[in-house]
Amino acid sequence: MKLATLRNGKRDGQLAVVSRDLTRCTDASFIAPTLQAALDDWQRVAPHLAMLAQSLEHGAVPSARFHEHEAHSPLPRAYQWADGSAYRNHVELVRRAGGSGTPESFWADPLMYQGGSDSFLGPRDPIPLADEAWGADFEGEIAAIVDDVPMGASPEVAAGAIRLLVLANDVSLRKLAATELAKGFGFFQAKPSSAFSPVAVTPDELGDAWDGGRLHLPLSVDLNGKPFGRADAGVGMELDFPHLIAHAARTRPLCAGTIVGSGTVSNKDDGGPGRPISEGGVGYSCILEQRIVEKLTAGKSVTPFLRTGDIVRIEMKDRAGRSIFGAIEQKVGPA
Amino acid sequence: MKLATLRNGKRDGQLAVVSRDLTRCTDASFIAPTLQAALDDWQRVAPHLAMLAQSLEHGAVPSARFHEHEAHSPLPRAYQWADGSAYRNHVELVRRAGGSGTPESFWADPLMYQGGSDSFLGPRDPIPLADEAWGADFEGEIAAIVDDVPMGASPEVAAGAIRLLVLANDVSLRKLAATELAKGFGFFQAKPSSAFSPVAVTPDELGDAWDGGRLHLPLSVDLNGKPFGRADAGVGMELDFPHLIAHAARTRPLCAGTIVGSGTVSNKDDGGPGRPISEGGVGYSCILEQRIVEKLTAGKSVTPFLRTGDIVRIEMKDRAGRSIFGAIEQKVGPA
Repeated sequence: MKLATLRNGKRDGQLAVVSRDLTRCTDASFIAPTLQAALDDWQRVAPHLAMLAQSLEHGAVPSARFHEHEAHSPLPRAYQWADGSAYRNHVELVRRAGGSGTPESFWADPLMYQGGSDSFLGPRDPIPLADEAWGADFEGEIAAIVDDVPMGASPEVAAGAIRLLVLANDVSLRKLAATELAKGFGFFQAKPSSAFSPVAVTPDELGDAWDGGRLHLPLSVDLNGKPFGRADAGVGMELDFPHLIAHAARTRPLCAGTIVGSGTVSNKDDGGPGRPISEGGVGYSCILEQRIVEKLTAGKSVTPFLRTGDIVRIEMKDRAGRSIFGAIEQKVGPA
Repeated sequence: MKLATLRNGKRDGQLAVVSRDLTRCTDASFIAPTLQAALDDWQRVAPHLAMLAQSLEHGAVPSARFHEHEAHSPLPRAYQWADGSAYRNHVELVRRAGGSGTPESFWADPLMYQGGSDSFLGPRDPIPLADEAWGADFEGEIAAIVDDVPMGASPEVAAGAIRLLVLANDVSLRKLAATELAKGFGFFQAKPSSAFSPVAVTPDELGDAWDGGRLHLPLSVDLNGKPFGRADAGVGMELDFPHLIAHAARTRPLCAGTIVGSGTVSNKDDGGPGRPISEGGVGYSCILEQRIVEKLTAGKSVTPFLRTGDIVRIEMKDRAGRSIFGAIEQKVGPA
């Protein structure tokens, strides 16, 4: 099934079930008022939501047109956003640019940061940017929303706790990252509010594109209406979601509704670090990678970070070309 | 007023008002079901809670005995836990032990990490520790719970958003911190679930011990029934809460119910880095500091990190010796 959170003036919005083709939706708040409430009681609630989804497909319940721009992020705020960095090409490029190599240990003991989760942006909300000098960037990612995961859970147990998948735009302020990371306490100010796709889907909606750990489809990232990235989310993800979730749960339990991110989707290209789409490559899911490749190949970065008015669009289509999650489409606006 | 969250079998517990002397409580869930719900709608809800608190003091409403061990952390889970490190002595000691100095810039651009907030421990819950080799430690802190804070808020605006104060035990796994920090993404696995005091209090309950930015009272930290720390929370806190909150809100808004921590309370002692209470000093609010001072003065650390069965107690008394927040008292247990 596909779920969305419609804006209703309340902080957590209102739960709705969305049709497979994303054209219709029906109120689900009589089953659970919000998506967090549904996740808090998933075993009891999910079968009722699934039946409602089936009725919606059959036109057997009242429905309204689903407008992606009216949806909030599926969880407008969450109790946890733990973001990994599982794509080898992204990690290697960023570390190479920073002058350090990538230890093989990273693929057993992954990179993961604790993100702010109290104030997500909606999928069509502007990205509030107070200062272009902060070097704003997008990061196109896949994320899993999990049920309760006990402390010390194995990847097998973690796999069984994956309830929903979404797309994410992990907005990043590159010029603040250096100062923040130098202090040794993580990204904090360099990771402002993230945004998620209008629709969250249960893994069964993905058919064989989902193998239980990775999502094998290209992630479409457009910048100002032009293709910027088409990297396959199933390629180059060294650690799959069950391993990322188990990493997050090693020293503490995860509460239902925890969102675990994949990190920036990134593919090597003919063995190299990637090429822009304009040169026949699969492109990039963030500006930083393109800037690093420019620096490596031509001696300097030319693509600018995000500026006021820029528009980023992140979407994933199935093999028949149908949007799965709806699109994140955000204009960079003043704060 | 003083507020607590009683366990009722639900994830977020049930809101109660507690008497000033911590002996009685009365159900407040007819005003707001949970503390998060109260914070979500504070302007409307707070006056009703204040009236109920007044009625409780006058014995004008039904009440029951308040048992600290039945209380959960005031927010059993929160949308954000942003923990600063504002005490100069703590930062200088830890960085000195790590072989680096402390730039003066830290007192304008503070240390702050994003903590996990989805699964707090109750104030009397055991600390689940899977492996003593992780080097478990406590950190006694003060924390502020805020209302909505807009992005880019000034310290003055931040000051006006402080709704409640609590004590915190920021449980830390020292031996995992080195590995996690070396990856550059922050503490993640080295900061398992924190615990908070049984009671959260509005700033007016603190009288002149609260100056709007700092809490001027000693924090009592006992280890296995013996005094371990009596550092004054008002001394050596280089940046006050309004500045910490403004730092957290520089690049994104903070949602109501965000908890901002002070970092480990720590005092210099006669100009030196502190002395144990047994030697006439004010002691420490974490084991790590004592270990570092041992290393600096005697060449090696002798105080062990927490072991299964150890009991840590964190409390703050007013000038008349009355407990303000109730006590955090946690036994280190197996996972």
